[in-house]
Amino acid sequence: MHNNFDINNLDTISVIGVGLLGGSIGLALRAAGFNGTRIGIGRRESSLNKALAYEAVDEITLDVAAGVSRAQLIIICTPIGRFEPILQKMAAALNAGTYITDVASTKVEVVKLCGRILPASVKFVGSHPMAGSEKTGVEFARADLFEHSLCIVTPTTKTPQATTRWMRKFWETIGSYTLTMTPEKHDTLLARVSHLPHAIATALVNMSKKDSAIDLAGPGFADTTRIASGDPQLWMDIFGTNRKAMIKALDQLIAELTRFRGQLDRDDSKAIHDWLAKSKQIRDRWIAKRHKMKVLPP
Amino acid sequence: MHNNFDINNLDTISVIGVGLLGGSIGLALRAAGFNGTRIGIGRRESSLNKALAYEAVDEITLDVAAGVSRAQLIIICTPIGRFEPILQKMAAALNAGTYITDVASTKVEVVKLCGRILPASVKFVGSHPMAGSEKTGVEFARADLFEHSLCIVTPTTKTPQATTRWMRKFWETIGSYTLTMTPEKHDTLLARVSHLPHAIATALVNMSKKDSAIDLAGPGFADTTRIASGDPQLWMDIFGTNRKAMIKALDQLIAELTRFRGQLDRDDSKAIHDWLAKSKQIRDRWIAKRHKMKVLPP
Repeated sequence: MHNNFDINNLDTISVIGVGLLGGSIGLALRAAGFNGTRIGIGRRESSLNKALAYEAVDEITLDVAAGVSRAQLIIICTPIGRFEPILQKMAAALNAGTYITDVASTKVEVVKLCGRILPASVKFVGSHPMAGSEKTGVEFARADLFEHSLCIVTPTTKTPQATTRWMRKFWETIGSYTLTMTPEKHDTLLARVSHLPHAIATALVNMSKKDSAIDLAGPGFADTTRIASGDPQLWMDIFGTNRKAMIKALDQLIAELTRFRGQLDRDDSKAIHDWLAKSKQIRDRWIAKRHKMKVLPP
Repeated sequence: MHNNFDINNLDTISVIGVGLLGGSIGLALRAAGFNGTRIGIGRRESSLNKALAYEAVDEITLDVAAGVSRAQLIIICTPIGRFEPILQKMAAALNAGTYITDVASTKVEVVKLCGRILPASVKFVGSHPMAGSEKTGVEFARADLFEHSLCIVTPTTKTPQATTRWMRKFWETIGSYTLTMTPEKHDTLLARVSHLPHAIATALVNMSKKDSAIDLAGPGFADTTRIASGDPQLWMDIFGTNRKAMIKALDQLIAELTRFRGQLDRDDSKAIHDWLAKSKQIRDRWIAKRHKMKVLPP
């Protein structure tokens, strides 16, 4: 097939799971000039009809095998917990050389699963587009969801470089910056900057119920805990498929908080000030960098 | 003096420290119909001139005693660390019956300090208007900063009910909802929903620097850590004046995270799901309530 990704060389792209991410990929493909057929594959007719109504896809089907058999590119956008049966249904129906990726938020287990079930003749590499929100459903899909966002592509030592290059180009075509790293490195770093913050937001909200403390919470609390309004099933899957890195990140956080507790206990205001100032400096620099890259929402 | 707060009965109101909060009080007083004199008191001529230029105050002075001597209401808006010398300068210059409050984010130590230094002839009660942002300076002051925000007024057992009632009416006049509780209860609850979230945001940012993990952080991380861009001095003071409640809140959080760590370790997906779902439910209800009360920023 095509060695270089070119949107004009593709006739058919299938998206499995047409929610916020899958729907946004459909809309972004059209906006980027894709004139072929976008097939939406799903479990519920009502969701698929909604995706059609929002013009996120051109055709819909409940039949995974039928839906992937014509595709030159397949993007799996379902929750991690549903990957295995879907991969099994796909496996026999795939054409050799079909490009396949997914959008799961953890990569080690997902990439292993895909490698085990998908035939060696297809070109699979995992992806993690870091876009979205706590909202779910195709009604929140946007053609510009990936604009100025980061997508991490996660080849293993077995992934041909051409496959990785092709997939990066796909994500760049719909607006993302791309980076590559191993699934292991991805999961370790994301545990610290994404999965751990989610666990903390969850803990803070659960703690805030006692004595109705939450009734005194303000906009700072609303921001800090925004992600705790995310989908419990999705996050159960993320935690469940990244247990090792999560435990390590939790231990690091508990050590950091225990150090701070010691500073409070001995009233070491200088150490507390330095800790706060260091964090402010790191964050302010990061925000400035994001503004420069235009990655912050407007 | 006046038993019921009435903006038309006041000639002179002094604001000590004209930054974001002090400046917003000045602007809000004018917007609420106050036609008397707003005196801005500060340490630096440049900041005071800026407050004048933004029309947040009508007169300015570097002399605390002179600035408070004519006032019928004084609002102390300086960082906690500067309270003691300011209170000492005020003490001799105050008229009997002058209403005094402050806007500090912790109340036990501040209220004790004020009670110790201010003469018994004045009417002091502490306040904590829960408005503002990580921004500082009068250039961010807004007449509507307190609209639909919560202000907690913290009488002790010695505070006359009339003083508390008067001060609530003052905050309500510039747009706040008000609640009353003891300084102790305030500090315990705020540790959980405000001070602890700040410490966590600080810890997360400091942890994110290792291996440049922060370069993979997305909008979720930006929200969770927004408050870590706050003023280190201000937060050092908050932590330092609420050490006991903070240590208790930290211990509760570490226990909550340790429980979650155990669930991860034994791959208890049901317990993890329930934990996430409970948190989502609590937060979604709180957000719905806030929307109903219009307390969320537009």
